[in-house]
Order: sequence, then structure tokens, then C-alpha cells
Amino acid sequence: MTSQDDAGGLFAPDRVAVVGATEREGAIGRAIVANLAEFDGDVVAVNPKRDSVLGYDCYPDLGSVPDPVDLAVVVVPPSVAVDAVRDAGEAGVRSVVVITAGFSETGGEGAERERELAAVADEYDLDLVGPNSLGVLSTPTGLNATFGPSNALPGNLSFMSQSGAFITAVLDWANDQGIGFKDVVSLGNKAVLDETDFLEFWADDPETSVVLGYLEGIEDGRAFVDTAREVTQETPAVVVKSGRTEAGAQAASSHTGTIAGSEAAYEAGFEQAGVVRAENVQELFDFARALDGLPLPASDDVAVVTNAGGPGVMATDAVGDSRLSMASFTDDTLDALEAAMPEEANVYNPVDVIGDADLERFETAVDTVLADDNVGCAVVVSAPTAVLDFAELADVVAAAQAEHGKPVVACLMGGERTAAAERALSEAGIPNYFDPARAIHSLDALAVQADVEAREYEAPTEFDVDRERAREILAAAADRDDRRLGVEAMDLLEAYGIPTPEGEVVDDPTDAERVAGRIDGDVVMKIVSPDILHKSDIGGVKVGVPPDEVRDAYEDLVTRARNYQPDATILGVQVQELVDTDAGTETILGANRDPQFGPLVLFGLGGIFVEVLEDTSVRVAPVSEREAAGMVDDLDSAPLLRGARGREPADESAVTAAVQRLSQLVTDFPAILELDVNPLLATPDGVQALDVRLTIDPEEL
Amino acid sequence: MTSQDDAGGLFAPDRVAVVGATEREGAIGRAIVANLAEFDGDVVAVNPKRDSVLGYDCYPDLGSVPDPVDLAVVVVPPSVAVDAVRDAGEAGVRSVVVITAGFSETGGEGAERERELAAVADEYDLDLVGPNSLGVLSTPTGLNATFGPSNALPGNLSFMSQSGAFITAVLDWANDQGIGFKDVVSLGNKAVLDETDFLEFWADDPETSVVLGYLEGIEDGRAFVDTAREVTQETPAVVVKSGRTEAGAQAASSHTGTIAGSEAAYEAGFEQAGVVRAENVQELFDFARALDGLPLPASDDVAVVTNAGGPGVMATDAVGDSRLSMASFTDDTLDALEAAMPEEANVYNPVDVIGDADLERFETAVDTVLADDNVGCAVVVSAPTAVLDFAELADVVAAAQAEHGKPVVACLMGGERTAAAERALSEAGIPNYFDPARAIHSLDALAVQADVEAREYEAPTEFDVDRERAREILAAAADRDDRRLGVEAMDLLEAYGIPTPEGEVVDDPTDAERVAGRIDGDVVMKIVSPDILHKSDIGGVKVGVPPDEVRDAYEDLVTRARNYQPDATILGVQVQELVDTDAGTETILGANRDPQFGPLVLFGLGGIFVEVLEDTSVRVAPVSEREAAGMVDDLDSAPLLRGARGREPADESAVTAAVQRLSQLVTDFPAILELDVNPLLATPDGVQALDVRLTIDPEEL
Repeated sequence: MTSQDDAGGLFAPDRVAVVGATEREGAIGRAIVANLAEFDGDVVAVNPKRDSVLGYDCYPDLGSVPDPVDLAVVVVPPSVAVDAVRDAGEAGVRSVVVITAGFSETGGEGAERERELAAVADEYDLDLVGPNSLGVLSTPTGLNATFGPSNALPGNLSFMSQSGAFITAVLDWANDQGIGFKDVVSLGNKAVLDETDFLEFWADDPETSVVLGYLEGIEDGRAFVDTAREVTQETPAVVVKSGRTEAGAQAASSHTGTIAGSEAAYEAGFEQAGVVRAENVQELFDFARALDGLPLPASDDVAVVTNAGGPGVMATDAVGDSRLSMASFTDDTLDALEAAMPEEANVYNPVDVIGDADLERFETAVDTVLADDNVGCAVVVSAPTAVLDFAELADVVAAAQAEHGKPVVACLMGGERTAAAERALSEAGIPNYFDPARAIHSLDALAVQADVEAREYEAPTEFDVDRERAREILAAAADRDDRRLGVEAMDLLEAYGIPTPEGEVVDDPTDAERVAGRIDGDVVMKIVSPDILHKSDIGGVKVGVPPDEVRDAYEDLVTRARNYQPDATILGVQVQELVDTDAGTETILGANRDPQFGPLVLFGLGGIFVEVLEDTSVRVAPVSEREAAGMVDDLDSAPLLRGARGREPADESAVTAAVQRLSQLVTDFPAILELDVNPLLATPDGVQALDVRLTIDPEEL
Repeated sequence: MTSQDDAGGLFAPDRVAVVGATEREGAIGRAIVANLAEFDGDVVAVNPKRDSVLGYDCYPDLGSVPDPVDLAVVVVPPSVAVDAVRDAGEAGVRSVVVITAGFSETGGEGAERERELAAVADEYDLDLVGPNSLGVLSTPTGLNATFGPSNALPGNLSFMSQSGAFITAVLDWANDQGIGFKDVVSLGNKAVLDETDFLEFWADDPETSVVLGYLEGIEDGRAFVDTAREVTQETPAVVVKSGRTEAGAQAASSHTGTIAGSEAAYEAGFEQAGVVRAENVQELFDFARALDGLPLPASDDVAVVTNAGGPGVMATDAVGDSRLSMASFTDDTLDALEAAMPEEANVYNPVDVIGDADLERFETAVDTVLADDNVGCAVVVSAPTAVLDFAELADVVAAAQAEHGKPVVACLMGGERTAAAERALSEAGIPNYFDPARAIHSLDALAVQADVEAREYEAPTEFDVDRERAREILAAAADRDDRRLGVEAMDLLEAYGIPTPEGEVVDDPTDAERVAGRIDGDVVMKIVSPDILHKSDIGGVKVGVPPDEVRDAYEDLVTRARNYQPDATILGVQVQELVDTDAGTETILGANRDPQFGPLVLFGLGGIFVEVLEDTSVRVAPVSEREAAGMVDDLDSAPLLRGARGREPADESAVTAAVQRLSQLVTDFPAILELDVNPLLATPDGVQALDVRLTIDPEEL
């Protein structure tokens, strides 16, 4: 499904066939046919045992339907579902929704059936939703090809969900809240079409203003990031990813049978993709409504206008909790407010028009602050008073929002008396909340999206590296059947331009002396063996060896290693320049592979910062320069790299270059499963990788 | 207001007089009289210009009212309000609510008027609410002595608010939500009665099950903590403290004119007081409803029962975000569930009874998990399905909750179709939410309260200290007119049993040699002068001075100091044992004074942990042993004290003893405004204070 025409068949077909249609009470095949009653197009039933179903013509199979079918909804038992889909392909149907359950979610046999299903879809180039789906729904054509109890109101939100039950719950609730949808799709097992496909489709759909997702996992993280990165430049995507926590991930995995990627990968991937992440259902819809109805703010500066001090302070607290800040008004604004307000009013932000404010005073205040260039967005907070009618205030707020083109949210606080006002605000796209914190939180989501749209996509830098040399090093290790490499792989880093101290791995004492002779001053010597993990523990590391002791040290290191483990493979001894680690900050630069997102890079300060405080930052590779810089910004301990407490600041551009070069390395070589440079010493003059460990999969070379 | 009888006059008077009653449309004096229409007792009006008001007898002044008045509600202009209150006192009225505004909230003149008001209240021993109050309200007697537009439904929540406007908003909204109240009080300027008084009163009120507060500040933090600590052992108190954030605090201060205490003090004080803190309005009422309607859980282990995998995962994620954990079922439970559920069901937590579950299957699952001793509380999550009626499910949930006596919250997800179910659940005290995260969050609040009730109050230890010696040191500094002290005050710590290295401050070179002679090995020498802050910068610190160089070092230090600042007061030179700081972890132990809460103690790891990562913990002094231990637990960097990365663990009991001893010192001496022990070296053998700085206020000695 790559063009709008394709998914048009899914959401806007001319003719729908329900394969497995029936009149049996309680059957899913009946519920779907019944739900199609309001469909603008034609409906046909397919069931060899019947001539008609609920008044629709019924045919024995898809091939017998006289007119072309655009969408087949398959509800036959699992044992015949694959055949039914093949029939659809044979009959020239392009879009298929497989409602039938009993595929990969049930284990082995079902998984095999699902592979067959995907193969058939591939053979006939079908756009296939499911299996194990609640169905699809699209309000412009009146299509409700689901077996759920509710239909959707029309609207501009398009919603995909990995949980069909969640869709039934949401539709029932949304109807009550007046929230409408354009398209809704229950993704089911995602055998063919997945979240990336629908994101891409809705990006091109002029009737979709916001994409909503409830996801438990992402099929192909890298593809999702690449697609979403472009989509979200114009179309906001708000996603609840469940299984965020360890407990949740365990539950999600037992529920869907998928191996969940790490939360760190999702967090990084969503951030890089520009997805607005919601933590729960309330946020999902709060954010979506705000993004649907309101323009994006030009700045993060909020004006609060209230007739009630307390709630005004609550709104201000919420601003303090968010990424937003309280706007500072210009002198003109302050003068204008002072002229218009009574003496007891507060003209500074939060503006308190005080309890006896009538409509006019409120209007003047809202209008004045929205006209201020220092104000990016606003919230209007009002307690109920005898001198104010909420419905009238709603009209004032809506008019001011429209006139100034800045996002405004409302917090007209009350119960029933807010009903008319809420309707009027809602028609103007303005959400109203009882809780000021929720109102501010929605503005926050707008600011996040504004940032996403403002950032320019920057392709990862392609550094000039010695890829061939890196391949040789990995191939040599594979030939030795080594899967875990240490300092013998320092050249891998050099090949990708990550500086390492001068040094070499040598396998005889004369070479050791030669290398030491090339190096100024004393050296560090380390035994190199894939079989000895904790080299220091066996005395396998010597620091500060003077030139004339190098030969003896070599012999001693090898002897110790042999004594410790007679059958260990000893690759030699590393002779390395002695680096003054006190001259810089020890950092850690790592990479691993996520089942969904592929290579991830990690950066943090070493030692306690990574081990005790877990202060690290992760991105999906390859990372751009901006993303690499963002990784440093993410760290609580970043000030230590930047000159806190009288240190000399490290060369941050060298740090971000190393991050990008490592990202390029692990992207180029899927054979690298894990890699840790620890420490990467960051000094004012650059960085140096002092040690490295990696795990490779020779099969991937 | 110390006994129930007293506040009885406020919330359950026999006769209420409205002083300033009028029939003028739009007047507050009319609104109050009108709102008293449903009051069970007698109402009289006081206004010299009228004979009756809205049908009530009207008298020229309180002295003329023939029968005793229990509660006077004062709505006269500010210029005569104090006189009106004096009249009330003269007439024997015990309880007064001053609605009139124009007191301290308006600045200088008003503040003076408020002091007069408080003096009159004190003279006549009046229980006085306000001034600048919306009024008070109590549902059992039908008393609505407010000028707000809404009355309250009856209930068991008692609510105090520093914002009157917030009360009007809440009442309107709560009526809509079916939330009822016992008493409501608008605290106004808190000239006499404040949050501590009402907390105390409601603790003794059998009709109040939960106390709710919206507070912008606390008058006397220490009194609040002491009172709340006892109250919350039996009666939950849920508080929104606004002005939490820097932006919010600024707004609150300009709104109420009070100087806000630090957020750290409030956070510590509320924690020590056992207050359940809500971050926003939604939490305030979510937590209050759960605490009102449900028993407390015996453990933090939650069972999730759902018919929908996705929402079940969302609930599990919310558990992961909270202090709760997912319960592990016993084998009996698993066997029972396996026997009762279809094969596709998941019997592990979260239990998925799957989409075709009927009422009976749901009932079996809920009943089975609640019977499990490993389950402390539960949430029932249901998407709407064709085979399930939410109202019936609600009855099942309510019955199971009642039978097992464990807290259960519901998440029957939908719109209108949940209305009947919500009513039934609400009658059983069970909240229902669309968002599983909100449901879990409410259980979390129950678990917090369970912890509060379970903890035994432990008085701060009174260590045997040399208080007299400490007083002498402080008095000596005061005599010298020194407000900033350094190492010359090390003995202050010794006097309170906080170990310091061997050493002394001496004022001649011979004494320096004598002290050095007493000490093993080399010494550290530091110039001691209140006028020289950065001693290292002027070469005023010598580390590792051998015994034979002590005399010269002494002369050199004094010369440097004189050269640097000829007029500096030089108290001498500190000669101190050389301590190996590498043998332990440098921590910081400090204290300062909060305007509301009094002395606070602070603990954290030194250097970057306090300066860059701001990883510190604060409590209101005096702290108990449990609280001191909790301060260490609070630190992200605590593992570094406890043996992370191969360190030897520090003597934690010595650390907590030092915290408590410092807490005792600053509690004993209000003259100590600020004090920092930095570093306090924590080793496996104990702690040592290596340096100290303090600021004193001689007036407080």
C-alpha cells in the first residue's frame, strides 16, 4: 500500500464483499453485514449456503460475484481463511481485511497459517489488514466493516490500533465526547500492512489531520522512523506505545506473542521520528484534539488569563512542569491591561482579571495578551461567577483564537453549566478542561509538534572511512572463530576515524620493544586473549612499563596467562601509549541491536554515571549530527563535559563525531551485535578510545 | 478551635446571623442570606437600615438579637468589619466568618486592619474564618453560608481551600460528578483559623472520611507537620499545594501576598506529615474518592482482570509507573483460573478472560484473584462486548469488593453505556475510569495512605549533647560580631557528637607546634578568618605539613593573610589531622531555615552530586531515625555509600546519626540560620566532618 489509490480500496471501496456472511444471531459474520447498513457503496455477501444475507445478494464464492469487488472482508473459519484470501486474489480484489482469528496469536500452527496468508497476499499483491482484526471503518463513505458495537462520528482523526477491544471502547466513549474519526483500522496481527503503511497513507490523505496510534510493538522500527520522520513534518502522529514498563512489556509479549524491542529503543525511535508520545489514553485523545483543532504555537510562551487566582496558580504550576514557559508581556501589553483593568487586577502573567470581571473585561484581557508578540499560546481559566456567562465567554475565546491565529485552550471550570460553552468551544476546535493542568498539557503537545515541524531533516554524515580495513579485521576474527573481541580490534575504531592511543598488538617480545620504542615514555601492556575476560584480576595488565622492561613484561604477561588458563588462545600483548585519564572525562560509547529498530548507539559518562546513575542516552543508528549532539544534551551529567566545577570543557565536537562514526560503523556492519568503547576519554583536545569490546555474528559478515 | 464543640459552632450552629444582610440585587449580603434558605437552624439578619431581609427578622446590631447567635457571617464593608467582629465578641458569639475583603491581600492598610481583626478575635477567643472568604458550608445541617452559586451534595469529604473561586468551580463540577461533601471552608486570609485547625477538627469528626485541601501556603509548617502526622494515621488528607514550581510560586506569591516556603520544604513536610499529595485537580478528587470509598490494601500487589488484552497491558504499564507491583498468583489461583477459563485465556497476571467472556467467567476470575493472599488490590478492566452488560458487571465487581474487603477499582470502558454501571459502582464506593492509568493511580494513592497508617510515629532521638558548650561557641562568635563562622566552629559539631578530625584553632606558632605534636604524622593547616572566604585561592591552606615545618607554616599563613587583606580579622590557624579523603565518600550535611517550616536538614553526596546532579534529600527538623535513614534512601547516588562498584560500604548508621545530631543542633539553636558540613567524610569506620561553615543571627541567641 504505497499510494492513496491503494488504500482507497480499503477505506473508500465501491463494492464490499463479506466472505463468511451469515444471518446466524451472535455471529461475527452477521455483525459485519449489519454494520455495513449505512455504507454508501454496494455490499455483497459470500456464503455457499445462502442466496441472500440480511437483504444483500449472496454468492457461493468471490469469483461468482458479477461486478468487481474492491474490498473483501473475510470472516470464515481459520482453516479456510487462506483459501478465501487466495480466491479474493484470483477474483481481482485488491484489498482484504481478515477478521478471522487463530493465526500467529495462537502459536505454532497458527503462525504457519499466517506465513501462508502473507505469501498469498504477496503473490496477488494484496493490501491485507489482519488477521485477527476487528475490521476497518471510514466515515466519509459510511463504511463500517467492523464487528464492533459502535460506529464512529465523522471527524479528521485517523486511528490505528493493535487492540481491537480498545477500538470498541474508544468508539463508544468518543461518541459520547463528540470526538469524530476519518478512518479507523484494527491492525490485528499485521501479517502484511502495519503501522508504517497506514502512517504513510494518512500522510497523503487530505481528510486526516492527526494520526492516532495504539501500538504494542512496531514491526520494522527503522522503516517506521524513516517514514514517520517525513510524515510528522506535516501531519502530527500521536502514539500510545503500551508495554513501556518492564511489567507492561511482559504483559504485551504474552498478549501478542511478539518480542518487544527495548523501551529505550522505542523512546529514541519515536523521538527521532517526530512522534508525539502519549503515556496513556487520556493524553492520546487530549493531544489529538488539540492538534486537530488548533494551530501550532510560534513560541513556547504561554499567557494565562483568569478570573480566579487559585486556578491561575494551578495553570502556572502546570506550565512549570511542562516544556512551556510563562510569557513576559511587552510594556505596551502591560500598559493596555493596566488601563483596562481595575486596580486590584494583576496585569502580569498570569493575568488575574479578578472575580467581578464581566465578559468585556475578560475579552479585553484575552485580546490584549494574544496580540502580544511575546505570547505564543494562551489558556483562559474561569471559575463560575454571577457576572459571567460561560457560553458567552466561550464565544469570546473562540473569536479571539480565530482572530489572532494562536492556539488557545480553555478551562471554564464547572459542571453542567459548562455544557453549552463546551459545545461552542469544541466547534471552534478548542478543548475545555476542568483541570488547568490538562489544558496546559495539551498546549505542551502543540509545542512538541511545532518543534518537530520546525526541525529540518539532516541526513547522517557519511564519513570517509576505511570500510575495507574494518571488514578485514572482522573477517579475521570470524576466521579465528572469535565472537568476542577486545583490544585486538582497536584498529576497527581507527578504520572509522575514532582516535585510539598509539599502540599495537604484537606477538613476540622483539615486536613489543619495537612498538614501545616508537612511543614516547612508559607504556601500558595488556594480555590479549578472547578467553580471558578479567585481565586485571590475573595480573594481565601492566601500567607504566619503562622501555627497558618491555621484553620482560611481555614474557611475564604471557606466562601469567598460560598459568591461569593453559588452553587459552593468546593473540599476543597490546603495547600502548600511557594515557593520562585525569586529563579528561571518561565516557562510554556503545552500540547494540534491537529486534525492531536495528542498531542503537548509546553515550554516557563512564563509571558511576552509567553503572549507578544509569545516566545514558540512546538513539537509533544511523544518527545525524543534530541527533548526536542531542545525546550529549540528554545527559544529566553533561555539565561535567562542559566545564562544570572549574574543569576545562571537553571538545564536544570530537565527542559527537565519535558517536556518529560509531553509528556509521555499526550501520555498515550488521555483524557487530554489541560494541562498547569504555572508556572513551574526552579531553579539551579531542577524544581517545582507550578500550573496546565487541561481540560479532560471523554469519552476518 | 481545639475541640469539636468549638467548630461545631462553625459548621453546625443553631442560629446564624448575617451581619450586613441586604436585599440589594447582586450584593454578597443578599447571596448569603439566600443561600441559607435550606439551613436547618435559625437565620437572623443584622442591618440597622432594615426590619427584615428576605423574610428573616433583621436587627440593628448583634447585641439586639434576642436569642444567642452561634455563628456570625460578616459581610459589611472593610472599614467597619473589625467593629462588627468586636460586636460579635461582645454579644457572646463564638464563631465568625469574615467574608469581607480588603485586608492583607490589598497591602499595607489592609494588613494593619487584619492585625486588628486577629487581635479582636484573640481578645474574645473567637473561631474566626477569613477575612476574604467565600464562606463555610456543611451538608448535615443544610448550612450554606457562602455567596457561591452552588450548594454541595451530602458526602464524607471535608474540603478546605485557600481559593474561594476554586470552591465555586469545584462545587459546580462535583454536583455533576455526584461527589458530595461534609464540610467546606474557604480559608481566606487565615488571620485566625488555618489549615492546621481544620485538619485537627476534621480528624475528630466521625462524618469526615477524607480531608481535602487546596493550599497555596501553610501558615506554620512545623505545627502542620506535628498535627498532620497524628491525624493522617487515621484520616487521609489529600492536598494540592499550588505554587509547586518556580513559576507557580511566583504567581502564588503575587496572588496571596505570602512569602512561599521552598518547594523542598513542602515536599519534605508533607511526606513527614503523611499527607497524600496531589499534583493537580484531577488527582485531588481521584484520590479523595478512592480513599473515601475503599478499604486500604494490605499489600502493594495488584491483580488486573480484563477481557481485552490491550487495555490490560495499559493497566500493567500504569502499575509499572507506580509504586505498586503486579501480584504473583499462588498455584491454587492459577489452577482455579485454568480450570475455569478457556484455553486462549491468560491466567497469569494480567488475567485476560478474553473478549467472549460472559458475566460468570468475569465473576469467577475476579473472585478467584481477590481470594488470593498474594493480591492486595485489583482493577477490573473491560471493553464493551456483545456478551456483557456493564451494569451487571458493576454489580459483580461491587459484590466481590465487599466480600473480599480489598480495594477494587474499575475501568469499564465506554461512553453512555457505562452510566448505569458507574452509578452502581459509585454507590459501592468504587470509582470507574475510562483510562486504566487513572484507575491504577487511584490504587496507588490507597497504597500511599496504607503506608502512612502503618508507620509508627517515632520521636526524634534526644542525643546526649553538650548544649552549653555549643551555646558558648555561638555566644563567643556573637560577641565578636561574627555572623559567618568557619572551622573555628568545629567544636560546635563536636559538642553535638559529630566527629571531627583531631585538631584545634591556635593563635600562636608555639601552640601550633604543640597541637601538631599531639597528632600522628603530617597535618593540614588553614588560616582562620571570617573575612577570607576563599582560603585556598590566597594560599591559606597547607596540606601535609611535617611537624618540623609547622612553625614556619604558621608564620607564612598569617603573612599571606595579612598581605591579602591587611584589615582582616585573623582568629588564628587551624592545625588538623591529615585525613585520607580517598578512604571514604565525601558527603554534604547541611541545614537552613524555611519561613514556614523552620529548620530543614539536607543530606547528599558532595561535589558533582550536589552541585551538578542536585541529588540531595531534605527533611523538616527535628528528624527521627527513620526519617534520617529515609534521606539516604532518597538519593540516586545512595549505592555509592553502600558498596557499589567494589567500594567498601560506609557506616550508614554513623551517617544517619550525624544527620540526627545536626538536626538536634539546629533545632536547639534558632540562631543558626544556615550550616554546611562539607565534606562530611563517610568511611566504613564512621564519619568525620572535615569542614564547616555557618551563618548565625546573634539576635536569636
